[in-house]
Amino acid sequence: MKLKLLLTLILTFNIMAKELPNHQLAIVIHGGAGTILKENMSDEKEQAIKLKLTQAINAGYKVLANDGTSTDAVIAAINVMENSSLFNAGIGAVYTAEGKHELDASIMRGNDLQAGAVAGVSHVKNPINAAKEVMLNSPHVLLSNLGADEFAKQQGLDTVDNNYFDSEYRYKQWQAIQHKKDVSLSEDLLKTDHKFGTVGAVAIDKDGTIAAGTSTGGMTNKAFGRIGDSPIIGAGTYADNRSCGISATGHGEYFIRYAVAHDICARVLYKNISLKQSANEVINQELKKVGGDGGIVGLDKNGKPVMIFNTAGMYRGFKTQSSETEVFIYSEK
Amino acid sequence: MKLKLLLTLILTFNIMAKELPNHQLAIVIHGGAGTILKENMSDEKEQAIKLKLTQAINAGYKVLANDGTSTDAVIAAINVMENSSLFNAGIGAVYTAEGKHELDASIMRGNDLQAGAVAGVSHVKNPINAAKEVMLNSPHVLLSNLGADEFAKQQGLDTVDNNYFDSEYRYKQWQAIQHKKDVSLSEDLLKTDHKFGTVGAVAIDKDGTIAAGTSTGGMTNKAFGRIGDSPIIGAGTYADNRSCGISATGHGEYFIRYAVAHDICARVLYKNISLKQSANEVINQELKKVGGDGGIVGLDKNGKPVMIFNTAGMYRGFKTQSSETEVFIYSEK
Repeated sequence: MKLKLLLTLILTFNIMAKELPNHQLAIVIHGGAGTILKENMSDEKEQAIKLKLTQAINAGYKVLANDGTSTDAVIAAINVMENSSLFNAGIGAVYTAEGKHELDASIMRGNDLQAGAVAGVSHVKNPINAAKEVMLNSPHVLLSNLGADEFAKQQGLDTVDNNYFDSEYRYKQWQAIQHKKDVSLSEDLLKTDHKFGTVGAVAIDKDGTIAAGTSTGGMTNKAFGRIGDSPIIGAGTYADNRSCGISATGHGEYFIRYAVAHDICARVLYKNISLKQSANEVINQELKKVGGDGGIVGLDKNGKPVMIFNTAGMYRGFKTQSSETEVFIYSEK
Repeated sequence: MKLKLLLTLILTFNIMAKELPNHQLAIVIHGGAGTILKENMSDEKEQAIKLKLTQAINAGYKVLANDGTSTDAVIAAINVMENSSLFNAGIGAVYTAEGKHELDASIMRGNDLQAGAVAGVSHVKNPINAAKEVMLNSPHVLLSNLGADEFAKQQGLDTVDNNYFDSEYRYKQWQAIQHKKDVSLSEDLLKTDHKFGTVGAVAIDKDGTIAAGTSTGGMTNKAFGRIGDSPIIGAGTYADNRSCGISATGHGEYFIRYAVAHDICARVLYKNISLKQSANEVINQELKKVGGDGGIVGLDKNGKPVMIFNTAGMYRGFKTQSSETEVFIYSEK
């Protein structure tokens, strides 16, 4: 009789253990970091941005709540931002030196470390979807330029004329600096473009799989085929179920040199510290010391969101199983 | 009197500490890893490869011995291999699906984590030199395609017609597989190209600065603008004076997903283990488990060389202050 009771207890405990995973569903997103100051922002624009961030979070969380994968949640959230001209990704992307648009995106999932990315696409409507196709339907990780567009088309993704990405605001921004001689490779340009308008999302699904994705229109007036951190696995995006998922936004060159997304996950795993502490070490110590502006959003393996940046502001927000949707623009300090 | 003696001792000890740096000059190189078996290799080819590896090591070490920088030592060693058609880098690069050549290279130095890389260049004679120019003379890290060629030309580097990179051996290799339908994105291709013919070098100079560089002609018949790990800082190349310098060769997609070069340095730094143990964990555990073929060469901050691979062979060798030049082709096991 005692044995039977014991067996029943063990069985019940096992079922409970399965029913109560030690992580919560969660999604955290960003829409870029930079010199975002309240005095430079109209109430209207602020409301528009907050609304779009909320829509993106809710679109992603809905996927998770319906037992979808974190990969699809990341795609859903990023698509909302790519399809809005408020962010430098998809429509509303910045202009290259030639007055065109070249977009980058990457995605990674943490259960098997599969990843996909595209750099310099001109015709895929939603670059993050192209990154997903590379991850799921090619043996490659990073495809570039017209070859990446061609692959996306073969996979049946929506393609558009390059001028689909046009927007008045970005056009004026480009006009204002494009007359500067050789500006595209000067430090000056990097300093004048004070907002790194990348978008990104990190989600964790019912299986505990973390996915992270990043999408961007890059740097205004970029030339020489410059590639930033957004399509670089390890720099702009990383996900590993053993540690965390990260999507970054900022001065891409620093994020590549410091392998920011991978370094944050590596510190969590090897130093056995919290994601918050790890991200603070990388963003507010390593990067800040050398002037590497930007920030990250991330989730640890329990689904705890973290949003860390060393700039004045970062468009950001999250929703978890234990909290409602929250969105922020400026530093809370 | 006792005090004077003590002060003298302290002073002497300080001078000794300065005069005896705790590192030795060293360079370690590779010319690619893969299914390199003695039974498939003629004595002539073996001798030619060993001679070229020796020349590359000695060219790099000469720079170090003459008080040059580790960056210049890496360039000197890699140039020897780029200028030889025995390796898949520079002349002798593999053919793209279109019958052309697109080359990648990257370099990084560990004192200030500066880095430079080029992807898909067609006209720079020595891609590793273009990577160095990006590192030293541009605010960017990664330039691609014709833009990267244009930048290299502006910096005064030697440019060549694309057919400069032609070689009979690679042409036949391409002819043998190029008729296969859509082969460029099939797992098949990845499996038939059993030798990952990247070249790379890691050096440490008198100041204790570690530099690492990698150069490649990529994958035979590659299409869709595929970018491998060689131009990706963190994947194919990484250098950090606090931990190590790494140059990788192998199945690039795995090396990107596992951020191999950065991960090896991160384990050294955060887990406080030797470079040899760290590289073994990544190459012979993490990568081997999932079929990620390849290897690395590296130096720790004391100038101790490490050469680790999970394939049958890797063209490799080193010279340090305490040892003569040694070169190897097959596994020593």
